[in-house]
Amino acid sequence: MGFRPLHDRVLVRRVEAEEKTAGGIIIPDSAKEKPQEGEVVSVGTGARNEQGQVHPLEVKAGDRILFGKWSGTEVKVDGEDLIIMKESDILGIVG
Amino acid sequence: MGFRPLHDRVLVRRVEAEEKTAGGIIIPDSAKEKPQEGEVVSVGTGARNEQGQVHPLEVKAGDRILFGKWSGTEVKVDGEDLIIMKESDILGIVG
Amino acid sequence: MGFRPLHDRVLVRRVEAEEKTAGGIIIPDSAKEKPQEGEVVSVGTGARNEQGQVHPLEVKAGDRILFGKWSGTEVKVDGEDLIIMKESDILGIVG
Amino acid sequence: MGFRPLHDRVLVRRVEAEEKTAGGIIIPDSAKEKPQEGEVVSVGTGARNEQGQVHPLEVKAGDRILFGKWSGTEVKVDGEDLIIMKESDILGIVG
Amino acid sequence: MGFRPLHDRVLVRRVEAEEKTAGGIIIPDSAKEKPQEGEVVSVGTGARNEQGQVHPLEVKAGDRILFGKWSGTEVKVDGEDLIIMKESDILGIVG
Amino acid sequence: MGFRPLHDRVLVRRVEAEEKTAGGIIIPDSAKEKPQEGEVVSVGTGARNEQGQVHPLEVKAGDRILFGKWSGTEVKVDGEDLIIMKESDILGIVG
Amino acid sequence: MGFRPLHDRVLVRRVEAEEKTAGGIIIPDSAKEKPQEGEVVSVGTGARNEQGQVHPLEVKAGDRILFGKWSGTEVKVDGEDLIIMKESDILGIVG
Repeated sequence: MGFRPLHDRVLVRRVEAEEKTAGGIIIPDSAKEKPQEGEVVSVGTGARNEQGQVHPLEVKAGDRILFGKWSGTEVKVDGEDLIIMKESDILGIVG
Repeated sequence: MGFRPLHDRVLVRRVEAEEKTAGGIIIPDSAKEKPQEGEVVSVGTGARNEQGQVHPLEVKAGDRILFGKWSGTEVKVDGEDLIIMKESDILGIVG
Repeated sequence: MGFRPLHDRVLVRRVEAEEKTAGGIIIPDSAKEKPQEGEVVSVGTGARNEQGQVHPLEVKAGDRILFGKWSGTEVKVDGEDLIIMKESDILGIVG
Repeated sequence: MGFRPLHDRVLVRRVEAEEKTAGGIIIPDSAKEKPQEGEVVSVGTGARNEQGQVHPLEVKAGDRILFGKWSGTEVKVDGEDLIIMKESDILGIVG
Repeated sequence: MGFRPLHDRVLVRRVEAEEKTAGGIIIPDSAKEKPQEGEVVSVGTGARNEQGQVHPLEVKAGDRILFGKWSGTEVKVDGEDLIIMKESDILGIVG
Repeated sequence: MGFRPLHDRVLVRRVEAEEKTAGGIIIPDSAKEKPQEGEVVSVGTGARNEQGQVHPLEVKAGDRILFGKWSGTEVKVDGEDLIIMKESDILGIVG
Repeated sequence: MGFRPLHDRVLVRRVEAEEKTAGGIIIPDSAKEKPQEGEVVSVGTGARNEQGQVHPLEVKAGDRILFGKWSGTEVKVDGEDLIIMKESDILGIVG
């Protein structure tokens, strides 16, 4: 079925601990405030600014990202647990 | 009689649990903070920005949407319980 | 005598419960947080935006509206109890 | 001597209860949160917006106005007790 | 030595009670929240707005002004106790 | 080695009490909330505004300034105790 | 693997105490609120402003910087402990 985030929102799949070693970023689960790693599933079309312009987001589907520990809202899409967040919650792109 | 939301507001009908299985998104009622699924009934014409422009909303009547658990205000329209919310409360479009 | 609201304010007459049945929206008085129904008596000329432009309001005299329960300020005009509110307090137009 | 309010401020004289009957608006003194009626004594030249423009205020000297109960600051001008407030504190113009 | 306020700030000398009678504004010292009267000593060149423009202030040296009781910061300039405040703290110009 | 403040920040050296007599401003150390005097060591290139423009700061190296008591952050540069603050913390220029 | 910060974020490596002597800035570890020194590892492409423009950041990889003690979020990149912060957290450039 899929899910298309609105405006400047991004749908993200959490990347589990062991997979992360390949990605070069080791974030031990026990770390409380540490940022989390994930993969972008789908992105919104962008938010309209005060000039009425809509600019595409900087991240795209497939990007490996780091995001703040408490960012976004949990949701189930097609039976899978994912997270919906704003692009501004994303710290950067891995790799 | 109907009801036309003002500016960037959206009128939404909650989608009950069983219908959701077809929609691919299973959100058990018991879930506290989980986003809710609904269907857009009618939309406002859009809010005027600082340039004086009015842009149409990204969602339209009939869209299946996910919105934050505590979004909007409950109201009865033509005897039916619906919710009025801002477009910015909507996380994305299902399907 | 009358009363002309300033900028983006709107003067509203509350619509009593029984009249509402015709209007198709039933909002039992006992309901605490439910939005209220009313009729627009007069509107301001609009607020000036950062570009110095003044745009007319979307609601006009005679419109049936729904507004947030705690919106506006009570006032007596020509002996009648009315409410002065901002257009942004109005959820939408009935009918 | 007089007093010229700065920018978007307005100097206002409170209208006492009995005079108000002629004005058509009866606001019993005992009313706590009710808006107050007054007469505009003098107005500022207007505030400069982000475009650097200065637009005249919508109210002018002599207008009968309604303003929020707790608006403005009390001051004595030429021995008379008056109030200095922002135009945004004014709800509308009577008559 | 003198002192040139920065941007939209204004240097003000408090006007003592007795001088005020001539100025037509009587503000008894005992009054708690009453605005204070003062004389403008020097003004800044103006603050730059979002368009990059700098507009001169509306008040100038020598103006008699009314300002909010708790406005500004006390400072000694050339041995004299004065106050530095923002132009937005000034209610209006006397006379 | 030196230190170049970023954007609209300013590096300031506190001026000790005795030097201040020459500067005409006497700020006894014991004064709690009194503004402090200092000398500008170096300035940033200016902050970019919403139009994308960068305007130079109004203060420059060598200026004697007054700034709010609690402004800025203490730092050691080349072994000397200095303060980094925003230009908006500066009240004005002495002399 | 590397890590590309998003928008106006900057990836920073803390500079340990002894190295700092060469850098001319001595910030004893024990200092509580003192700014910290670090080296820029990589920078984002810049944030889009309200005009839709993206301007490059003022700091670049290799710059020695001072930043507020509590700025940013700790993260491990390629096994190394680094910090992700906004450019606005950076006080200035050393040297």
